[in-house]
Amino acid sequence: VFKDKGYHAATIQDIADEVGLLKGSLYYYVASKEELLYLVVKEPITRIYRQLEKIADGKAPAREKIARAIQVHLEAFDAHDPHLFVYVREMENLMARLKDKLTESPKHYERLWYRILREGMKGGELRDDLDVKMVTYAILGAMNWMYKWYEQDGRLSIQEVAKTFAVTFLDGLVSA
Amino acid sequence: VFKDKGYHAATIQDIADEVGLLKGSLYYYVASKEELLYLVVKEPITRIYRQLEKIADGKAPAREKIARAIQVHLEAFDAHDPHLFVYVREMENLMARLKDKLTESPKHYERLWYRILREGMKGGELRDDLDVKMVTYAILGAMNWMYKWYEQDGRLSIQEVAKTFAVTFLDGLVSA
Repeated sequence: VFKDKGYHAATIQDIADEVGLLKGSLYYYVASKEELLYLVVKEPITRIYRQLEKIADGKAPAREKIARAIQVHLEAFDAHDPHLFVYVREMENLMARLKDKLTESPKHYERLWYRILREGMKGGELRDDLDVKMVTYAILGAMNWMYKWYEQDGRLSIQEVAKTFAVTFLDGLVSA
Repeated sequence: VFKDKGYHAATIQDIADEVGLLKGSLYYYVASKEELLYLVVKEPITRIYRQLEKIADGKAPAREKIARAIQVHLEAFDAHDPHLFVYVREMENLMARLKDKLTESPKHYERLWYRILREGMKGGELRDDLDVKMVTYAILGAMNWMYKWYEQDGRLSIQEVAKTFAVTFLDGLVSA
């Protein structure tokens, strides 16, 4: 329903109709549209956070960590299309409405990225003249913006997109 | 009003109240919220399209074209905050509602980026093993995602953000 109607246009009534419940019955389970969206994405988000923690804690070179982290993020989008896309789009809205219920903070996810980048810089593997936060936002932006254009049966697989993004960010566009 | 209330929550009534008009009077000028948003962003969008055309047509090395194109895009966001941010977020919605009125197509903008990248690849300046469309989406994604986090009085100026993005995309994160 969120995909067909758009998240903002969709109502609890539309969703109740779709599953054959009375609106009042659906409200027995969820207090709002925001809560319903969160229930759907909670598990994949927790999983992707655990995966990024594991990558950050691992001993692989920064290059591999970054490529792997991009892959994990994009594969989750693909596996949970469109829910995770709706989530990244509506994140602030959701956070404002569900403050006390959120168990995973997007800030935690960003900080794991900072750690991977910072350790790679300290170890000499990554250039250390770039602002870690800006680089994280550039990578997350490139990935999260996919809600605008990604199609599951598109020309490239999600793994090919992940690889292109990883090479672009790691090695840059300028030919060696 | 779009910034304070959020674009979706804002109504023509809210906007009429803000400018001291009756809702009916405002409807005399604009048919919908979408049209109002478009009226506000039309001019800066036309300007940024002309700027990118000029960059693409120019004789500078691909490296300079890309850095300059990123700078032009981000400076426009900064100068027209929050209107252009609301626009990139609502683009599809706007395009569906205003099909016949739009004078500038986002596809045209993307194609100018393809051209800059393709010519840089052909000339040997840029690596030619990456999908041009994916690279364009990565760059546009990093930039357009700024509607989530950019603050005008933030730690870095828009020029510093533009420079960080340009170096990240052109030279990559891995130290030379």
